[in-house]
Amino acid sequence: MRSRSVRAALAAVAGLFTLVLGAGSVLALGEGTTTFTLDNGMQVVVIPDHRAPVVTHMVWYRVGAADEPRGQSGVAHFLEHLMFKGTEKIAPGEFSRIVARHGGQDNAFTSQDYTGYFQRIAKDRLPLVMEMEADRMSNLQLSDEHVLPERDVVIEERRSRVDNEPASRFGEQLDATFYLSHPYGQPVIGWMHEIEALDREKAIAFYERYYTPNNAILIVAGDVTEQEIRPLAERIYGQIPVRAEVAPRQRPKEPPHEAAQRLTLKDPRVTTPLLRRQYIVPSYSTAEPGEAEALDLLGHILGGGTTSRLYRELVVEDQIASYAAAWYAGDYLDSGTFNFYAGALEDSTLEDVEARMDAVIADVLQNGVTEEEVELAKNSLIADTIYAVDSQARLARIFGVALTSGQTVEDVQTWPDRMERVTKDQIEDVARRYLDIRYSITGHLVGDEAEKSGNDQ
Amino acid sequence: MRSRSVRAALAAVAGLFTLVLGAGSVLALGEGTTTFTLDNGMQVVVIPDHRAPVVTHMVWYRVGAADEPRGQSGVAHFLEHLMFKGTEKIAPGEFSRIVARHGGQDNAFTSQDYTGYFQRIAKDRLPLVMEMEADRMSNLQLSDEHVLPERDVVIEERRSRVDNEPASRFGEQLDATFYLSHPYGQPVIGWMHEIEALDREKAIAFYERYYTPNNAILIVAGDVTEQEIRPLAERIYGQIPVRAEVAPRQRPKEPPHEAAQRLTLKDPRVTTPLLRRQYIVPSYSTAEPGEAEALDLLGHILGGGTTSRLYRELVVEDQIASYAAAWYAGDYLDSGTFNFYAGALEDSTLEDVEARMDAVIADVLQNGVTEEEVELAKNSLIADTIYAVDSQARLARIFGVALTSGQTVEDVQTWPDRMERVTKDQIEDVARRYLDIRYSITGHLVGDEAEKSGNDQ
Repeated sequence: MRSRSVRAALAAVAGLFTLVLGAGSVLALGEGTTTFTLDNGMQVVVIPDHRAPVVTHMVWYRVGAADEPRGQSGVAHFLEHLMFKGTEKIAPGEFSRIVARHGGQDNAFTSQDYTGYFQRIAKDRLPLVMEMEADRMSNLQLSDEHVLPERDVVIEERRSRVDNEPASRFGEQLDATFYLSHPYGQPVIGWMHEIEALDREKAIAFYERYYTPNNAILIVAGDVTEQEIRPLAERIYGQIPVRAEVAPRQRPKEPPHEAAQRLTLKDPRVTTPLLRRQYIVPSYSTAEPGEAEALDLLGHILGGGTTSRLYRELVVEDQIASYAAAWYAGDYLDSGTFNFYAGALEDSTLEDVEARMDAVIADVLQNGVTEEEVELAKNSLIADTIYAVDSQARLARIFGVALTSGQTVEDVQTWPDRMERVTKDQIEDVARRYLDIRYSITGHLVGDEAEKSGNDQ
Repeated sequence: MRSRSVRAALAAVAGLFTLVLGAGSVLALGEGTTTFTLDNGMQVVVIPDHRAPVVTHMVWYRVGAADEPRGQSGVAHFLEHLMFKGTEKIAPGEFSRIVARHGGQDNAFTSQDYTGYFQRIAKDRLPLVMEMEADRMSNLQLSDEHVLPERDVVIEERRSRVDNEPASRFGEQLDATFYLSHPYGQPVIGWMHEIEALDREKAIAFYERYYTPNNAILIVAGDVTEQEIRPLAERIYGQIPVRAEVAPRQRPKEPPHEAAQRLTLKDPRVTTPLLRRQYIVPSYSTAEPGEAEALDLLGHILGGGTTSRLYRELVVEDQIASYAAAWYAGDYLDSGTFNFYAGALEDSTLEDVEARMDAVIADVLQNGVTEEEVELAKNSLIADTIYAVDSQARLARIFGVALTSGQTVEDVQTWPDRMERVTKDQIEDVARRYLDIRYSITGHLVGDEAEKSGNDQ
């Protein structure tokens, strides 16, 4: 869900892109972006952006939580933490301090499909961070002295971000219930009892299997050219030996969803009851041509911002919800989700909210969408993205996500153009094909009430 | 659920066991049963039963569907089929024909926790079936010529037993939704798209990893003694080399269930709408002492047969259900389930049935059970089992299930005695501890109605 302030800011730039589109030019994301592959199989992507003498340097691994061995949920994220715990050359905890001493920032992130590391730094320090990142790709040194305290850090992270956040607990139980077989149902941070059983050996096994250059992507965005990056990448990353053959990423395919699921989580800390509904739908990498783009537009029409159908009906007109949104989450390797979200106002119930939401969905299935809605949605979504990529790091991240979830550089570049070509019929088709209650889970997050049966323990 | 005819038959023998118990003797199941282990690690169990000169010969492997590699659901069951496809000595399909020519019967079965093979045959043919079973434990020969047609057989089996049976589809979606992480959520027969991808290599890999004598249990019941069996077992099975070290069976531990789940499957073929509820509870092998026995008794009191609370209230008094039952399923390695089941009569809805069922559960939580109910449940359950083990094959099977799901020969033998010692308080304790809606899924199987949202495809 996008916040309202972002939406307001976007409204200000939307006109510009309408003009650009009106002039008949084909919008391309990250124009000038090139890609090549080193001899050891590592892919390199260069995204020129000469507005300032800075670079965003990222290494992405084509591995995420959904690739974890069964029963070791959280190991991908745990390893991400441990990547800061030192090599022969760099002492534990020094990595980020060195980057900071050179005026840079760094961070890392783990999702179901990828794990990424990035630094943003002055252009002349690029070789430094490349050397450091290449070093920890093959020379990670871990001792229990640093591994075990870091596991406690992750345990605490889970405690504060999931167990103490009713909406996170809710989302976790919802996903784990929703997926019948696919590992997307397992939380990225890991189940508590499995985090507690993680150790140095499991992290190293995961590292040895997946952190090999043929499974990695280098992305450099900023004040650079391919001519500059190619020799640097060959010298620094091209020398790293392949440690493991990387098989095609085969996760269990989700079986058909045939039965509408529901779930209720009660948590005494909940003040605003929350409704969630998600449908299993194709992702950008599994959809038929045009379907994913149509789902993106459908999401925007139904629930993107305050002019969307859902917001207008539930929040503005009926005044039964404090907020309401819908969106398509399509940047996944194996499947996407189509999501609805609404908070009940004090004197309404989630049953009321759900009935209104179902009416909004039924209406779109029966009567379709309007040409005007489609145009507005296209302009808005394309503007969102163009606005977002004004940030060098966000543009780099769009390429990283795409490349680790089954898409190509070209897919990213041509996205605005493909988006433009989606028709009203295509949007109505995907709505009818995928917004079928049988493919969905509906969740209610509510405060403490008398239990229907059974006592708390 | 037990059928009414079985219950009627049991009623006829129950008196006998009351007498036996009244005399103060300790009932033991399978008295005279002994166990020993061969040098290669294969366990042997001998269950003497001299009523007739026949034997039941079984080999059980400590491996089932829950041990399958991710994405290869159905491979345990597929391999079970392929075990009849020949060795160097025995041509494909000949195994069962040889057994039949010698007047015997044979079969095989696969569950989440075990895979078993058995023959019932005249005592003097025991060495023959032992030789044949030992032969296929290490000499299985598979060619695509036999593997691929057998895969079609399994595909057809799935089609007829699951896809064409609304109640089976329902059960499959229910279990896959219910388990948040544990492989018990995957169907033993396998998902269709994963069965279709099974092949000779996957079956052989599973065979090589798990069909090794140190992972197997030989059970011989019938007109034999340990003195007779020991040299036979040593000669025939003791010579089989260990092919793989068998690690402890570690399946992912199920995370806490915190949110009550619901699911509705619509199928036009449904004539009697069906209600199911299951709670996740400990199994015999994971429960604290006495808990599993108490859950068994609670199941019987709530829904075991026509004198149970559920049947009396829903079927006899309210006449809103055509049948209603509850039971504890506890013979699992990692966790058990506590189950409710009811069919709605034509002029009632599942919502009515569920409300009545919830009232029955709430009543037992609030007001407990009576001493008389406890005594009746003990007599009935113990009689059930004693009656069942009048069948040599069923007694052997009880040992096989127990030994492959974390219990011991002694656990089986002392079960009636432990059952006798369960108190009313213990039953009320497990009810309050485990019949909490947060640990449950509730499923509705209904016929074709107008869909709430979305069209069929």
